[in-house]
Amino acid sequence: MPHDLYYSPTPPKDGMLTITGPEARHISRVMRHEVGSVIGVVDGAGGEHEVELTAVRSDRVVGRVLSDTRGAREPKHRVAIAQAVLKGDHLAQVCSQTTELGVSRIIPFLSARTVGRLSPAKLDRLRAVSLAALKSSTRTVLPKIDAPVEFDRLLKLDGEFDQVLVAYEDETGTGLDKALKRAAHSVLIVVGPEGGFEPAEIEALKSVGAAPFTLGPRRLRAETAAITVAAMALGLLGDLG
Amino acid sequence: MPHDLYYSPTPPKDGMLTITGPEARHISRVMRHEVGSVIGVVDGAGGEHEVELTAVRSDRVVGRVLSDTRGAREPKHRVAIAQAVLKGDHLAQVCSQTTELGVSRIIPFLSARTVGRLSPAKLDRLRAVSLAALKSSTRTVLPKIDAPVEFDRLLKLDGEFDQVLVAYEDETGTGLDKALKRAAHSVLIVVGPEGGFEPAEIEALKSVGAAPFTLGPRRLRAETAAITVAAMALGLLGDLG
Repeated sequence: MPHDLYYSPTPPKDGMLTITGPEARHISRVMRHEVGSVIGVVDGAGGEHEVELTAVRSDRVVGRVLSDTRGAREPKHRVAIAQAVLKGDHLAQVCSQTTELGVSRIIPFLSARTVGRLSPAKLDRLRAVSLAALKSSTRTVLPKIDAPVEFDRLLKLDGEFDQVLVAYEDETGTGLDKALKRAAHSVLIVVGPEGGFEPAEIEALKSVGAAPFTLGPRRLRAETAAITVAAMALGLLGDLG
Repeated sequence: MPHDLYYSPTPPKDGMLTITGPEARHISRVMRHEVGSVIGVVDGAGGEHEVELTAVRSDRVVGRVLSDTRGAREPKHRVAIAQAVLKGDHLAQVCSQTTELGVSRIIPFLSARTVGRLSPAKLDRLRAVSLAALKSSTRTVLPKIDAPVEFDRLLKLDGEFDQVLVAYEDETGTGLDKALKRAAHSVLIVVGPEGGFEPAEIEALKSVGAAPFTLGPRRLRAETAAITVAAMALGLLGDLG
């Protein structure tokens, strides 16, 4: 596992990689790398380069690509989380921790009982938090964080996933281990707002094939539920060790 | 599931329950309950009373106990987390979210690479955060949060649990689902500090029977690891639905 990992989406050219912006500053000024240092650079799309630095400036770092790998340390399954917009900083926690765990995509949505909104500035922050988590977790794929969608949009996502699941507090009996199809390669798990779903919303999700499941008799805060379902699903699919 | 739940450890006397302090203020002033209201009160040791209020003052609320239950909504297994002390507010997040999930006990400890300390004031705050999580999750048992212990103390806890597990980033191959004995009624799971364990610490834990396991190839922050192992263990034992 590399211990000094950076992010730059620009592909190498003629075997040379150029890094600009804040990440160049971080490499040169904060981590004080010099010519000859070898660092790891991920592109957020699965690519990872081992790079030997040939020029180091605070605004521009250049290096020779020594080797390339693809998809290192990534889960074999795509687990996406659709999470109702939450008040305060809770969505940032969800984005950070589910990125570490290995989710492929996070879809914030608005539903009948959603309180709070997701401004463009806040969305930018979610993406920044997720990028920081990518680096700390040594992931190579940056999860896509969608701009917030209306609830109805969720009903049209089933074609993109092998299975859609929804955490529902009034569901009894079927837990995630029973509801999750082990043969699924891609799963979308929907987690509601603090106030839960309207029964009509659950019915609409069920009508497009979404399977409701319970997380047990205790009431989990939405952000705890999101992190829990990501951990449980990735664990059940064999992607957490 | 009760929707208005309060905490008071004092037992009823002659069928009457008296609540004082901040919780009395919360019932009377914030939630504006009046004589005749029926509320739920948990004692943090598994007891839960349904109480009809007979006197409401801001410093003292009295009510008649209508019914008692024990251990409602609690997991069947005891899952305890030993978590190395963490910098900043991360231990509070661990206490809050693992309380919601259903852990029985949280043991903060100090190890070779532990950075940060846990002052008595901060320990009080962890207990307050856990109590708030008990109420929001409608638990009836308040997890015990130990005062911080030295690493060596962990080596003497194996007699109190059917199994001791340790999350170890250099472990490969054995995930939690393989390491966790399903017949265990009580499990202690040890999670290290940000910098991980010293190899000698892992050897010492193994020498008293602790089983190391991996959480996969990504590097999880300590607080994410703690919440993840609580979710996975309770899930695998059948206590999350």
